[in-house]
Amino acid sequence: MGREIVVVGGGAAGLKAASRARRRDEEAEITVIEKGEYPSLGRCGLPYYVEGFVHDISNLMETLSGDVRDEEYFKKVKNINVLTKTEALSIDRKRKAVKISRNGRDDELNYDYLVLATGAKPVRLSVKGVDADGIFSLTSAEDALKITEMWMNESIESAVIIGGGLIGLETAEALERLDIDVTIVELKNQLLWNSFDFEMAELVRKCIIREGVKVLTSTTVQEFITEDGKVKAVRVNEKILPAELVIISIGVEPRTELAESAGLELTEKGAIKVNEYLQTSDPFIYAGGDCVENINLLTGKHVYTPLGSTANKHGRIIGDNITGGKSKWRGVLCTSIFRVFNADAGRTGLTEKQAREAGFDPVIAISPGPDRAHYYPGFKPIRLKLIADRRTRKVLGAQAFGLGVIDKRIDVIAMAIHRGATVDDLAEVDLAYAPPFSAALDHVIHAGNIIKNKLDGLLNGITPVELKRRLDAGEDLYLLDVRSQKEFEARRIEGYEVHNIPLSELRNRLDELPKDKEIVTICAIGTRSYEAARLLMNKGFEKVRFLDGALATWVF
Amino acid sequence: MGREIVVVGGGAAGLKAASRARRRDEEAEITVIEKGEYPSLGRCGLPYYVEGFVHDISNLMETLSGDVRDEEYFKKVKNINVLTKTEALSIDRKRKAVKISRNGRDDELNYDYLVLATGAKPVRLSVKGVDADGIFSLTSAEDALKITEMWMNESIESAVIIGGGLIGLETAEALERLDIDVTIVELKNQLLWNSFDFEMAELVRKCIIREGVKVLTSTTVQEFITEDGKVKAVRVNEKILPAELVIISIGVEPRTELAESAGLELTEKGAIKVNEYLQTSDPFIYAGGDCVENINLLTGKHVYTPLGSTANKHGRIIGDNITGGKSKWRGVLCTSIFRVFNADAGRTGLTEKQAREAGFDPVIAISPGPDRAHYYPGFKPIRLKLIADRRTRKVLGAQAFGLGVIDKRIDVIAMAIHRGATVDDLAEVDLAYAPPFSAALDHVIHAGNIIKNKLDGLLNGITPVELKRRLDAGEDLYLLDVRSQKEFEARRIEGYEVHNIPLSELRNRLDELPKDKEIVTICAIGTRSYEAARLLMNKGFEKVRFLDGALATWVF
Repeated sequence: MGREIVVVGGGAAGLKAASRARRRDEEAEITVIEKGEYPSLGRCGLPYYVEGFVHDISNLMETLSGDVRDEEYFKKVKNINVLTKTEALSIDRKRKAVKISRNGRDDELNYDYLVLATGAKPVRLSVKGVDADGIFSLTSAEDALKITEMWMNESIESAVIIGGGLIGLETAEALERLDIDVTIVELKNQLLWNSFDFEMAELVRKCIIREGVKVLTSTTVQEFITEDGKVKAVRVNEKILPAELVIISIGVEPRTELAESAGLELTEKGAIKVNEYLQTSDPFIYAGGDCVENINLLTGKHVYTPLGSTANKHGRIIGDNITGGKSKWRGVLCTSIFRVFNADAGRTGLTEKQAREAGFDPVIAISPGPDRAHYYPGFKPIRLKLIADRRTRKVLGAQAFGLGVIDKRIDVIAMAIHRGATVDDLAEVDLAYAPPFSAALDHVIHAGNIIKNKLDGLLNGITPVELKRRLDAGEDLYLLDVRSQKEFEARRIEGYEVHNIPLSELRNRLDELPKDKEIVTICAIGTRSYEAARLLMNKGFEKVRFLDGALATWVF
Repeated sequence: MGREIVVVGGGAAGLKAASRARRRDEEAEITVIEKGEYPSLGRCGLPYYVEGFVHDISNLMETLSGDVRDEEYFKKVKNINVLTKTEALSIDRKRKAVKISRNGRDDELNYDYLVLATGAKPVRLSVKGVDADGIFSLTSAEDALKITEMWMNESIESAVIIGGGLIGLETAEALERLDIDVTIVELKNQLLWNSFDFEMAELVRKCIIREGVKVLTSTTVQEFITEDGKVKAVRVNEKILPAELVIISIGVEPRTELAESAGLELTEKGAIKVNEYLQTSDPFIYAGGDCVENINLLTGKHVYTPLGSTANKHGRIIGDNITGGKSKWRGVLCTSIFRVFNADAGRTGLTEKQAREAGFDPVIAISPGPDRAHYYPGFKPIRLKLIADRRTRKVLGAQAFGLGVIDKRIDVIAMAIHRGATVDDLAEVDLAYAPPFSAALDHVIHAGNIIKNKLDGLLNGITPVELKRRLDAGEDLYLLDVRSQKEFEARRIEGYEVHNIPLSELRNRLDELPKDKEIVTICAIGTRSYEAARLLMNKGFEKVRFLDGALATWVF
């Protein structure tokens, strides 16, 4: 008989590990145990199921050719025993056995190698009433089915989503599309606190507000008000928000009870500790997916980034290593992306804030503009923020938002960071250009060039956040909008004195400008304000700044 | 007075050089001379104008804020003198002066630095009747306007396009959409000879044939048949193709008369020779854009790749170097992309064929499948071909085709090649995953994994082209289709004996398979045939091959 492999957890990491092991070793006995009813569920698709965009929940567990990946499928196609509704109770590491409970009966499985892919569980909110009916986390198929059922059978007028992260936003869209009145409640002063800088997160906020979602930031949940065990409202910052449905999405944390009770080492933050082979402190036990941390390739530090894509990669590496291979896992860039209504938002690497905290000296560029040649009908606007390190010129991160194509730009920059690229690499890389796909110089290249200009002393920027802060502190900055008078009259920065001299007149009106003040040049997307800044600098104005991201990123 | 800069050519390279020079040096006297009527024309947009998709030809020369980039614009906004309808006649390098002709009068411009951005001209076809009316090349606004006028005023029933490259295909679409009967005539045995491998080019051919375009490959143009000086038909391979309109798009070549007559060095292939600073053999003369060659970063050899994106990059570097800077230009990856009807095709790096010719030992993967999570409604199919070097594991190139998103995959791989990535980098890179954007493991990662499997001895592939060749040579290969019986009956490889054993039955029917023959496993997109190949290899079958690209890329 071949080696015995037991996998705990029938999600992406566990099933990938099992499948990869099978492909490398036909003789192994492979058993996967899964607590829930559904193995191999595409959990990332749950919000789409709730809004009815994905028709049937079994769609989320089908192969492309339409096979449902259930117990029978795994047995027939891969000769893998999948046991659903089966719980792992404990591990006897000395005897190399897992005690399980199935159909109310205890049993035991021996292993040569054990894989822990126990996933994550929602972070609990310790607030009065949190256990009432109508409060969900939407991290399981069961939750999704219950929400759908509730929507079909009862009237849901209002929902509150606790947590303004990625899942919270996706869920907000799903519920808004069901014609439910949705409010997002977020503790921090911005959405997407962990992954986006303020001005980029504000673009997302503006977008979802336009779609009818309400957003309360800097807001604390105090209590769930219930009636007959059902949630009726949420009390926040002394206000009452009616809600028959509450989704708590304040994050997830590793599910480690089994590992912990078996005496396996955990990390400081409470994930199962693994080495570069995804091996735990017991050499016969591997762990992957949402129950472990990853190395952030930019900082070298541990980071918790539970994601389906990473879980799949873990599974492959574990599958290798439990069948005689020696594959290594290096780490992640914390790349993430989501669609909310018609807009997309994505990020990779470090934010400006994170870069500073990690000891880098960040230089940024924000490139707003159409996602393809501006004369190609149907183009849509995007904003790309790029962050690089002043000393090494290396790319550190990017964030993008827009109605247009942003995933491409994020992925190109993820690949660039993965290979240690500098802004000079971005500026010269031979990306695919034709009018339906990009401008002749894509946003990635353009953003690289902006940072090059800054590093080479040709341009000094000021971010929207910094400009706002300094204006509000009463500093006397000279705001110079160089668009046409018509554009200026239609829309401009409000609340502060702004001067308008169109770029085409600027050369002849330099004497109107103060020599002693800091001048901030402003236009629609940054091309004209850049030309204006260069002109002023060339003419001897000493304190010239260019508004990073231009009006397109002025979110105040 | 500042330095005098003269730029010959008002296209992307010339105007970018001038604009960049102005941003770095406010005092320079900058003059751009342009032979045609339109400076700064987005030439890449001409096919879209012909089909009426871009409304007005001046759209191709507007800025995003709607300013037409004409002579007045350049004067007022950038203080650059643009002289249209002005020709450069000769260069007096000793006196540093350019003789020009403007409005029928000769004149002279002195320079400290001269920039040659003279662009390209269509390669001429030396065939009888080639000068007849109705024969165009669509490389200028003038041609585009004439074609549109001809279509409005005369009836055009049939058009022949000579040359099955990228521009030929874009033009075919434009004319087909005007309800003209279009035939493409190509000398080689495939479309896109210089940039795509056979099977990928055949996918493009199948796509445009479905849209009504006729394609004749391995076909030579013998004569244009004319009447009253107008083209009426094209004789090819002894056949007559009626045509009131002919577009010759067999490529372009550098326009170098001015450089040549001034005694500047040319390359072997006849481009203006430049060093890494884009400086010609005369240190006061720079050249960029379509009149120079580039270094192919993978082979280190010169290659002629006239493209708007590269021209823009050249312009920036020249703008630096003529104003005291010292910027270097490294080279290109020959990335290109185009949209034809609803499908997109793109490529970067080397094709399999080119990799072999350049002395690499190419290993390939073809990843067919949906462009996002297969349960996300609206996904569309793509095929991604990846080429890597067996010895170094480095990525050498990629080609993609499909109705779905391919530009993202090409750009990520372009960035990867630019930074010397291996297939291992592709397999582990943290790309942005969410169901609307990709599968959990994107095509790029998947293709990387396929090649890793091949390099690690887990899988042996056979390309569609190789399989077809060997079958036609009468070799006795055992074709094993492991899809369901239903799928098999609906569509399969035709013309050869194919055996059908569904993957789910394969473990129990191994005794039906021949031990001595080479077995080729086949399925729809490669996932099941991969599992089947691993099963057979694990069970001791020694000659197992997996059909690269599966049925999705079986183009015969």
